[in-house]
Amino acid sequence: MPETEHATEQSRHGISRRGLVGGGVAAAGLAAGAFAAGRASAATDDGSAPDARAAYSFRGDHQAGIVTPAQDRLHFAAFDVTTGSRAQLVALLKAWTEAADRMTRGLPAGEIGPTEGDTNLPPDDTGEAIGLSASGLTLTFGFGPGLFRDEKGRDRFGIADRQPAALRTLPHFPGDMLDPEKSYGDLCVQACADDPQVAVHAIRNLARIGFGTVAVRWSQLGFGRTSTTSVSQSTPRNLFGFKDGTANIKSEETQDVEEHVWVGAGDDAKADWLAGGSYLVARRFNMNIEIWDRQTLGDQEDFIGRTKDTGAPLSGGSEFTEPKFSMPGSHGPVIPKDAHIRVVHPDFNDGVRMLRRGYNFVDGSDALGGLNAGLFFIAYVRDPDTHFIPVQNAMAKTDALMEYVKVTGSALFAVPTGIGTDEYVGQSLFERT
Amino acid sequence: MPETEHATEQSRHGISRRGLVGGGVAAAGLAAGAFAAGRASAATDDGSAPDARAAYSFRGDHQAGIVTPAQDRLHFAAFDVTTGSRAQLVALLKAWTEAADRMTRGLPAGEIGPTEGDTNLPPDDTGEAIGLSASGLTLTFGFGPGLFRDEKGRDRFGIADRQPAALRTLPHFPGDMLDPEKSYGDLCVQACADDPQVAVHAIRNLARIGFGTVAVRWSQLGFGRTSTTSVSQSTPRNLFGFKDGTANIKSEETQDVEEHVWVGAGDDAKADWLAGGSYLVARRFNMNIEIWDRQTLGDQEDFIGRTKDTGAPLSGGSEFTEPKFSMPGSHGPVIPKDAHIRVVHPDFNDGVRMLRRGYNFVDGSDALGGLNAGLFFIAYVRDPDTHFIPVQNAMAKTDALMEYVKVTGSALFAVPTGIGTDEYVGQSLFERT
Repeated sequence: MPETEHATEQSRHGISRRGLVGGGVAAAGLAAGAFAAGRASAATDDGSAPDARAAYSFRGDHQAGIVTPAQDRLHFAAFDVTTGSRAQLVALLKAWTEAADRMTRGLPAGEIGPTEGDTNLPPDDTGEAIGLSASGLTLTFGFGPGLFRDEKGRDRFGIADRQPAALRTLPHFPGDMLDPEKSYGDLCVQACADDPQVAVHAIRNLARIGFGTVAVRWSQLGFGRTSTTSVSQSTPRNLFGFKDGTANIKSEETQDVEEHVWVGAGDDAKADWLAGGSYLVARRFNMNIEIWDRQTLGDQEDFIGRTKDTGAPLSGGSEFTEPKFSMPGSHGPVIPKDAHIRVVHPDFNDGVRMLRRGYNFVDGSDALGGLNAGLFFIAYVRDPDTHFIPVQNAMAKTDALMEYVKVTGSALFAVPTGIGTDEYVGQSLFERT
Repeated sequence: MPETEHATEQSRHGISRRGLVGGGVAAAGLAAGAFAAGRASAATDDGSAPDARAAYSFRGDHQAGIVTPAQDRLHFAAFDVTTGSRAQLVALLKAWTEAADRMTRGLPAGEIGPTEGDTNLPPDDTGEAIGLSASGLTLTFGFGPGLFRDEKGRDRFGIADRQPAALRTLPHFPGDMLDPEKSYGDLCVQACADDPQVAVHAIRNLARIGFGTVAVRWSQLGFGRTSTTSVSQSTPRNLFGFKDGTANIKSEETQDVEEHVWVGAGDDAKADWLAGGSYLVARRFNMNIEIWDRQTLGDQEDFIGRTKDTGAPLSGGSEFTEPKFSMPGSHGPVIPKDAHIRVVHPDFNDGVRMLRRGYNFVDGSDALGGLNAGLFFIAYVRDPDTHFIPVQNAMAKTDALMEYVKVTGSALFAVPTGIGTDEYVGQSLFERT
């Protein structure tokens, strides 16, 4: 967990924009005055909870926001690059790095801040996070296939020869009803925080800084994390009402993280820059909420393979008991063959595991009066060809849950490794050594 | 503040679904067992904040969710009635009352609960709130013009003669670019809570209960409240980056609440059932975020009439100092004549005030790569004809802010007064005395 290792003592105790100005500026080496006018007490004055979370360092061995304990809220944005200039793109990555480094510390996006500058200039921060703490913000950057080659296969920015072999548009799966306006993208930023206004502020300021170089292609808010990435977290529930993430890789399982999450040094000779990084799979699962809600409790549990209350496998025990798929029931196995937990279980998928980081979403309602709701699935895997595509195919073909979901968005990104001091996001890709 | 007066001792200290089962069941007179399987500790185990808020009683002199200190999250839903049967509609209002009473206590929507019932039946709660506390949930119900008369003016449910005179479709204002799929509705429910999953759970279960009688017409999530309704709350910021709600009516201003929020006993002879209630105006203001962000700090402050940092009026002082509109500047008054705070100030609007309860929203992005973001404005007023329409007209005509917003959704509802034990929402409307 490089985040923790790299966190300063101050950040471990939670910092606020006001706090930094009051006492921590010198230590953090930051411009004074920014956010001084904010009301750091806002988050507690009004009765909402004080932020007890750490602030996570933006720099480290790996990018933060992957094995970091999953925060409560998400704003995910995919961008298209609108410039043809490599220099302009690299300049943006440098500017994004600086802004991300600042915002994850609870500082404004720019050095001047939202209210301190020349009134004849636009502020270099938009201001809606004044008085809010860092709120555990992480910003995780990824590169889509379109960053390397355009639709005709032409090299866009002189990096086509370094495109990872597995970084291709995901195949069409049964059940996919993709909306191109919620799919794909040249770049992505995953913003996770415990305060949605902090996550939104970060994406909005990155989009502002990128004006003229990139444009937001789509973005997605998530309000309830559905995965745990640490044994210290209890398992939350998805909108099917079931615990989700029981079998997720936890950051404490360091062997599994190495084996299933991080790209290894020898994995892809053409894309050595990706070693220590990962692949981010984003899939927007719309749930047929209203139909699900009319299924019997027994059927719901059979679809999942777990009880709805404790999350124990239907073969008995408690939440973290290993399921016994061979245990006979009155009609076939007690965990049905098409139960979700069986279909996606490592025992039936060459032993592969994913690190999931999904969020529940509700985006208003659809034309038929149903809630436009579901699970925005995010997984980090070492190789989508081995760790995601076969599992998704198995799920699409045989999983009983598929009757209650459709996939309306899909994207794949290569997530570079972490950066050190004075490095920028993507440096290992753009600067050959 | 009837909510507080009616809250039980237990609820004041915050209740959780687990807590009720463990110790408070007898006192609250509730069925045992429900949610027993939940993990009440979920909200704290994972590092997120414990819920220190009160649970608000659903019954009282007025509906909760109006003068109640504004919670952090919103799920607002408008429904169309799909039945022609008055009996069926009344039955739904009774069922909604019972479910709302339960959920605002932190209990499942139905007596059996999400996991305790016959596995051959669908559960009477959807389960995603298992282990979450009441989280300050309030559910506030309103009736739209369409509940009284259909599009041809025909009496739908035998209550047309009791339609309040002011309950009409709002007029078209300059700047309105209404999406009919985000406007209007026969019924509305405002769900506010400090946990978005709790607000979503409530709306989802009310929609489930209403299946066959009503259908969701539209719904809106909001993640950051923009108004304070109590002097105990500090003023949060909207997505323009400015404090929003400084001049809002606070619940402690009891005289102003009586004068500007609650419908008086003699206000509308045909609609005496509405006395003690209010009108809810919902307006979805899309902000041109990207254009706003390129305006200078000085211009932004001139548009609002306040400084961006402290929220003080440009005429000086601190946030709560009264603005001096006559104070001269170098080019006209120091607070420009088209500044937002001047245009909507009571001094220029016959002294009227509103109680606002708005929320920030981001609903992904639009086709041009901008964030589909803004302010979901909610106001409670005694009479929209005097307290909203003239102010909105003034704003649409002269407010400098109008260049940066467009209104994409609009609705008006009559919000009946609170109910006592054994009464149901709307009883005063449907049962003549």
